Amino acid sequence: MRLVSFVHDGRTACGVLEGDQILVDPESRQADLKTVLEQNALSEFAEACAASGKRLPLDGVTLLPVIPNPGKILCVGHNYEEHRQETGRAKTAHPSLFVRFADTLIGHEAPIVRPPFSTSLDFEGELAVVIGHGGFRVPPEQALDLVAGYSCFNDGSVRDWQWHTQQFTPGKNFPSTGAFGPALVTPDEVGVLDDLSIETRLNGDVVQSSTLGHMIFPVAEIIAYVTSFTRLSPGDVIATGTPGGVGAKRQPPVWLKPGDVVEIDIAGVGLLRNGVTDETA
Amino acid sequence: MRLVSFVHDGRTACGVLEGDQILVDPESRQADLKTVLEQNALSEFAEACAASGKRLPLDGVTLLPVIPNPGKILCVGHNYEEHRQETGRAKTAHPSLFVRFADTLIGHEAPIVRPPFSTSLDFEGELAVVIGHGGFRVPPEQALDLVAGYSCFNDGSVRDWQWHTQQFTPGKNFPSTGAFGPALVTPDEVGVLDDLSIETRLNGDVVQSSTLGHMIFPVAEIIAYVTSFTRLSPGDVIATGTPGGVGAKRQPPVWLKPGDVVEIDIAGVGLLRNGVTDETA
Repeated sequence: MRLVSFVHDGRTACGVLEGDQILVDPESRQADLKTVLEQNALSEFAEACAASGKRLPLDGVTLLPVIPNPGKILCVGHNYEEHRQETGRAKTAHPSLFVRFADTLIGHEAPIVRPPFSTSLDFEGELAVVIGHGGFRVPPEQALDLVAGYSCFNDGSVRDWQWHTQQFTPGKNFPSTGAFGPALVTPDEVGVLDDLSIETRLNGDVVQSSTLGHMIFPVAEIIAYVTSFTRLSPGDVIATGTPGGVGAKRQPPVWLKPGDVVEIDIAGVGLLRNGVTDETA
Repeated sequence: MRLVSFVHDGRTACGVLEGDQILVDPESRQADLKTVLEQNALSEFAEACAASGKRLPLDGVTLLPVIPNPGKILCVGHNYEEHRQETGRAKTAHPSLFVRFADTLIGHEAPIVRPPFSTSLDFEGELAVVIGHGGFRVPPEQALDLVAGYSCFNDGSVRDWQWHTQQFTPGKNFPSTGAFGPALVTPDEVGVLDDLSIETRLNGDVVQSSTLGHMIFPVAEIIAYVTSFTRLSPGDVIATGTPGGVGAKRQPPVWLKPGDVVEIDIAGVGLLRNGVTDETA
């Protein structure tokens, strides 16, 4: 099952994606996917959408971030060996974690915004994990039980601000730099993560290419580590890190500029596409 | 004016602190200080509390974090020269920023909790800034206009987890490690920040002592920098960094253990006191 959050006729809603149609339930009291997850009501919600008979064409809505309002967004740094090596980071026994605020998120086809005082805007194609069931101190072998589904993420990074100090916070928190979508895809539909290809394309050219099995810390280990110190709740998001090939580490560096189009393509999960614009445009 | 958030008779409320009494307004619809700030209604709220004639003894309530539910909590690392030197960190042209989640916060007299798998729990006495008026891209000379008031903060840190990687996130986000209180003190009552002493006492012994004027990046510069990349909103919190003398850098290191009492004492702002307990206790 694929679920989307969107705006239609000025109202925020969510629904089930079927091909190029969105099944919606006008009677549903759940206006957003986080609430559906909090109420542990994904199946009932989907049934109500299917039963209502109401459909909207996908191209008639504006997609929002899959979860527009996560309580916690944790991002894993250098979680693919190729990327760790290109960044020159030491191997670590635990995942490197930084935090994004929810107001950095945008949906599929919304523009990534370059701030007025930096030209070092970069892409990072990633798998996003959306938490469905809350948990604290969850062992790896039970960690995937917390997962509501997966989506694509572009962890857009303003590199000079990311590197002002050792803490990544500023460069990862500019508004409209974290693309997240197009849909939440439930685990039964995604299948075995390790086998899935992940590819980032910049204006059609492949710039990152790997498979999810190349993660240094796989999803279950990340969740186990995160829940060692903080409780995860429905709607929380983990961006699981990016493969090698980021713009900053190319010779010469490749920076995103207005007019560029970035696509994050994860087999079975979706294709997330975003243009780039100047904040001052 | 001093404002507190608290629980009384099982209900969450806020009020105005006068000596050892809390003035409350049972008719007020504002159940929490963040809402009061969002509605830009601090004066009206205080007037309503004063007019109601209702008072609660301070020792009959359980104090909560001054703002129990901030949208964003940003913390500044090594912002006093003495602490920067003891940590061996390089000088930086910008503040070092990491993020805390709201569920790490506790109020005055609530226990700081040591997790079961670490003994390297440390104190960090700090000035907390509470945002009253939202802002984005605010120049330093206007930055203090955003401030609703100040409080004390103990940025309790699980050092081994803080140092798992270069990103501080895990060690700064264990539940019940961020003490925040006792009260929000408005700027008119605090006066000139630079002259105020800040002192941390562990079981009565002074372990950190400085004045707020020793901050490398003063409050206005921190706010200007933060609002360069992210919007601040009413109720958001900035913990402004700790002076030298943290437990981790003592010879031998001093770690917090069950039964310890930590006090953060900032002249004119308040005295924040918390015991330490084991999570498993």
